[in-house]
Amino acid sequence: MTAETPPQPGARLPIGGTSIQARIAEAAIELFYARGAVATTVRDITSACGLTPGALYNHFASKDQLLYVLVRDVHLRADDELAEALARAGDVPACQLAAAVRLLVAHAAGQRKESRVANREYTALATSGRQEVTTIRRRLRDRVTDVVETGVQSGTFTLVGSQDRAAAALTANVIATMCANISEWTSQHHPMTMADLQDRYVQMALRLVGA
Amino acid sequence: MTAETPPQPGARLPIGGTSIQARIAEAAIELFYARGAVATTVRDITSACGLTPGALYNHFASKDQLLYVLVRDVHLRADDELAEALARAGDVPACQLAAAVRLLVAHAAGQRKESRVANREYTALATSGRQEVTTIRRRLRDRVTDVVETGVQSGTFTLVGSQDRAAAALTANVIATMCANISEWTSQHHPMTMADLQDRYVQMALRLVGA
Repeated sequence: MTAETPPQPGARLPIGGTSIQARIAEAAIELFYARGAVATTVRDITSACGLTPGALYNHFASKDQLLYVLVRDVHLRADDELAEALARAGDVPACQLAAAVRLLVAHAAGQRKESRVANREYTALATSGRQEVTTIRRRLRDRVTDVVETGVQSGTFTLVGSQDRAAAALTANVIATMCANISEWTSQHHPMTMADLQDRYVQMALRLVGA
Repeated sequence: MTAETPPQPGARLPIGGTSIQARIAEAAIELFYARGAVATTVRDITSACGLTPGALYNHFASKDQLLYVLVRDVHLRADDELAEALARAGDVPACQLAAAVRLLVAHAAGQRKESRVANREYTALATSGRQEVTTIRRRLRDRVTDVVETGVQSGTFTLVGSQDRAAAALTANVIATMCANISEWTSQHHPMTMADLQDRYVQMALRLVGA
């Protein structure tokens, strides 16, 4: 089994994994965050958990499969939570955009390591895994694009350049990017509370859409 | 000699290198872009140039030193050009910000591969090289922060949240990030002319600073 093969059908690891899979995943995130997935060995991961090198293969098919599962699950969780946040936000596009930004900031700032690994390392996945993650990323971006486009169509938002789907996608991309970039900060940067950070990013997003 | 040791003093490669150093650098950028620096071997680089593996060491001390020189030079060039663009832009903060954004977009969209390698791979450098590049990155961000802060102090810009240096730095970071992210796009995204892209990004930046 390689990263080409999905793990147990329906299982979402580390979301839905066993406790030892979760422990391995946690150690892997620390290592992938600190030195990148390519430079991390199976031995590095198992040592960090106090396991023998071979023990990893009882729980994951390979390092690549572990990376795939991690990166996919961080994306799936963000996408699911974004869908829920938008559903709860009601019909006003500005409120929907605010809800989306609050969620994206919470992910990038509150789960900095997971977010950074997911955003940086998905390009290191084998082809089929990368395509799957790219599809989730596109769905996530499309949700934000839909909010921006709805705001334009209702006359609440006025974008720069033009008012078409391409302009909505460009603006949504800038908004998602600025939120995701928070995961790249080192902890001494901008020592703000989460609520303050979310408020500022919501206001910047509303400015970008001309609300 | 390792990445810890600077190359020929005063030399800026590939900016100021020999033609064969430039050829090696060009091949390395393609490979680092496609698969990352950690996963690229010296043999990959020399094969791509039609050289024997050992030939690299006549021109660079190691793969790490080559990566360091490349990443440093892309940053140095961007920083120098930003300083020139700001000097030419006159005293009006909005014009300075527009000049900065035009330059950052030109780098990220026009030299997509160099920019992406520089932005992604600097974290893979050995400590002293990484510190040097981090210093250049900070200087580059500080130039944008200075423009934003000057605009605030002259009453032209009104930021979200607060009007202090920290708020100027946060806004400058968002602006630099949104521009740099263009290097992550695949070429089929947003098929706009460079001028159109620059105009839209300038307008988004001006919205972010409340100009």
